[in-house]
Amino acid sequence: MKIIASKENLVNALRRANCAIASRVMLPILSNVMFSVTDGKLTVTATDNEISITTSIPCLVEEEGSTTLPAKKLMQIISALPEGDVSIESDSNDISTITCQKSFYKIHGLSAVDYPKINDASYDWSFEIPTKDLVRGLAKVFYARSVDETRKLLNGVVLSILDGVITITATDGRRIALQEIPLDNVELKNGDYILPSKASAELSRCMDDGEKVVVSLNKSEVSFSTGNTTLMTKLVEGTYPRFRQIIPQDCGCKVTVQRSLFTNVLSRVALVIDDPAGSVKLTFTNGMLKISATSAGTGESSEPLEVAYEGEEVNISFNPNYFQDPLKVMEADNITIEFGKQFTPVKLMGDDGFLYMLMPMRDSK
Amino acid sequence: MKIIASKENLVNALRRANCAIASRVMLPILSNVMFSVTDGKLTVTATDNEISITTSIPCLVEEEGSTTLPAKKLMQIISALPEGDVSIESDSNDISTITCQKSFYKIHGLSAVDYPKINDASYDWSFEIPTKDLVRGLAKVFYARSVDETRKLLNGVVLSILDGVITITATDGRRIALQEIPLDNVELKNGDYILPSKASAELSRCMDDGEKVVVSLNKSEVSFSTGNTTLMTKLVEGTYPRFRQIIPQDCGCKVTVQRSLFTNVLSRVALVIDDPAGSVKLTFTNGMLKISATSAGTGESSEPLEVAYEGEEVNISFNPNYFQDPLKVMEADNITIEFGKQFTPVKLMGDDGFLYMLMPMRDSK
Repeated sequence: MKIIASKENLVNALRRANCAIASRVMLPILSNVMFSVTDGKLTVTATDNEISITTSIPCLVEEEGSTTLPAKKLMQIISALPEGDVSIESDSNDISTITCQKSFYKIHGLSAVDYPKINDASYDWSFEIPTKDLVRGLAKVFYARSVDETRKLLNGVVLSILDGVITITATDGRRIALQEIPLDNVELKNGDYILPSKASAELSRCMDDGEKVVVSLNKSEVSFSTGNTTLMTKLVEGTYPRFRQIIPQDCGCKVTVQRSLFTNVLSRVALVIDDPAGSVKLTFTNGMLKISATSAGTGESSEPLEVAYEGEEVNISFNPNYFQDPLKVMEADNITIEFGKQFTPVKLMGDDGFLYMLMPMRDSK
Repeated sequence: MKIIASKENLVNALRRANCAIASRVMLPILSNVMFSVTDGKLTVTATDNEISITTSIPCLVEEEGSTTLPAKKLMQIISALPEGDVSIESDSNDISTITCQKSFYKIHGLSAVDYPKINDASYDWSFEIPTKDLVRGLAKVFYARSVDETRKLLNGVVLSILDGVITITATDGRRIALQEIPLDNVELKNGDYILPSKASAELSRCMDDGEKVVVSLNKSEVSFSTGNTTLMTKLVEGTYPRFRQIIPQDCGCKVTVQRSLFTNVLSRVALVIDDPAGSVKLTFTNGMLKISATSAGTGESSEPLEVAYEGEEVNISFNPNYFQDPLKVMEADNITIEFGKQFTPVKLMGDDGFLYMLMPMRDSK
C-alpha cells in the first residue's frame, strides 16, 4: 500500500475514525485503525466491536492494499507534521513509512487480515435528516441518560418515531429530556430505536462532513452516513419506557424567566451546598421566585427574581445539577418553568421542540 | 466587623491570599482566610504555617473587627456575584452575612482569635527588584527543581547573590536552569537564600499589584512585598550546591537554531517514544543536525535540520522533556546549543542572562 494524501484530510479522517476506538481494548488490534486503499481513495476504519466508523478521503494511490496502524499514535504524529502532502507506504511486514517534507517515521502496524470484519448489514429502510438537527438533538438530551451501568436500556438515547416526528429522548428515571424533530415529506416507520451510550456520544463528533445524514435501520442495527463517513452500531434490545404518557400536558402554573439570569442566580445560590445530594429550593409567591439553599457546613444563601406569578405559595426542591444541565444546552433567551403543587413534575421549555421534565425531591416543604 | 468593598477588589485580594492555602490542611482553620478591618482597609491573610500571604484593599468601614471565612468557598461566592459593591458583616458567632444587590449569604466562619499568629519577623536587610524580573526569573527556572521530596534542598529555588548579581537557580542534579538579574545601584549582600517549593510556585501568582518587589531577609526568613501584598516564608536550611563551578565556560562546539522550528521537530520526533525514560538522539555532522528516536513498540523517527556545524560526528542522547521544558519558557527567536563530545554537558542559551545545562544520558552511542 502506498498513498500520498494531504495532512488536513488525514487528520480529519483519523479524528472521525478514532471516535470508535475504546480507551481500553481487549485485543491489541482494536487499538489500531485499518487503512484500505482502492479506487483512488483511502478508507479508514475503526471499531470497538460494538460501533464501527469508516471514513474515506481522496488520495494519490501509488499502490493499492491495506494495513493497520496504532490509532492514537498515528493521530499524534500526523497532527504534528508540517502542513502539506504526507506519504504513507506499508511493507509486507506491516511496517509503514511515513514521510512529510523532511520528517521520517517507520511505524509498526498489524496485518489488516486480522482486523475484525465490519459487518455489511442489510437494512430494511432508511430516511434522511439534516445533520445539524441530529447533532443538536443529541446534545440537548444526552446528559439526561442514566449512567448506571446496570440499566443498559437507559444508558443510551432513543430515537422514537411516531407519526412523522422523530423524538430524540434520554431519561435516567428521575428526569427526561427530549427534542422533537418533525420531518416533512419523509416516510417514517413508527418505532423506538435505542442507541447505545457510546454511539450516542460519538455520533456528533464524526458526522461533520455532510449536510444530511442517511439513517438506515433494521431490527438490530443502525447506520448513520454523511459525506464520506458512516457510523454503524448495534441497537440496544428491549422496550424503552413509554415516556410520552408520563409527561403532563399542563402542570397548572407557569412562569417565564431570562435564561442567563436564572442560570447565574441558580449557580451562585447553589455554591453553599456541600453535599453532592444537597438541594436548592424554588419558592413561588405572588410576583416573586425566591431561590435558596442551606447546608449544615457552609451556611445559607438566597436570591429573589421577579416573575409574573399569582397564586398560593409553592415550594419545589431539587438537585441544582438537574436544573443546570438543560440550561447549559438550551439556546432561547427566555425559558418557561411549568410546575404544579409539591411533588408534581416540573417542566422546562423554551427552545422549539425541546422539553425537559424532572421530578422534585421529596425533601421539599 | 462590617465593610463594603468592590467585588473586583475582593476577588483580587482572595485570589492572592488563597495562594497560601494548602490543598489538604491539618487544622480546619487553615482552610480559612482571616479578614481584619482597621484604619479604613480590609487585610486578608492566609497561611499554611510555612508561607503566609497578607494583602489589603480599600473599603468602606462600618465597623472594625476581624473574622475568618472558608477560603475556597468565599472565593467561589464572591466571584459569582454580580459586579458592584459587596457588603460583608460578621456577628459575634463569626457568621458572616454577605450581600450584593439581591444576593444574600450567611456563611459560617471561625473566630479570628484561633487563627495562627503571622510572625512579624525582623529583617536584617532588604533590596528592591522589578516585579517582572523576579516573576520571569522564577518561571524560567522553576521546572528544573527536584520533585523528589527527600531532597528538600533541591525542591525549591535559590536566590543566589554574588557581587551585585542575583542568580535565580533550580536544579534536580541532572539539569540546572538559572537566570541572572544584575541589579545596578542596589546594595546586595552575598549569600544563597533557598525558597521552599511552595513559595517559589506561588510567589509569581500573588505579586501582581506593584512594579517593584521589596525583598527583606534575615537568616531564616524572607518576605516579598509589592503594592499591598506581602508573602512571607521560612527559608530552607542547608547549603545549596555550588552550581557556578560545574558550568563549563566553553563546551567546545556550538550551533544556533530557530527556537520554534527546533521545538516542533523535537516534539514530533519524540512522539514515537513509548517509555517515559526513552530518549531522543541529536547527531551533529557537517552542516547538519539530525534528531532521531527509536522505540521497540512504536517504531522510529528522524528529521534533519541544517546547522552551521563543522567537525567530527557527535551524538548526544537525552530525555526529550529535559530539552522541551526550557524551550517552552525561553523567549528568543534563536537559541544556541553548546556541546562537547559524548557525556559532557549540553548548554542551552538565547535569552539575556538565562542558561540551561543538562547532562546527556549514558545510552548515547
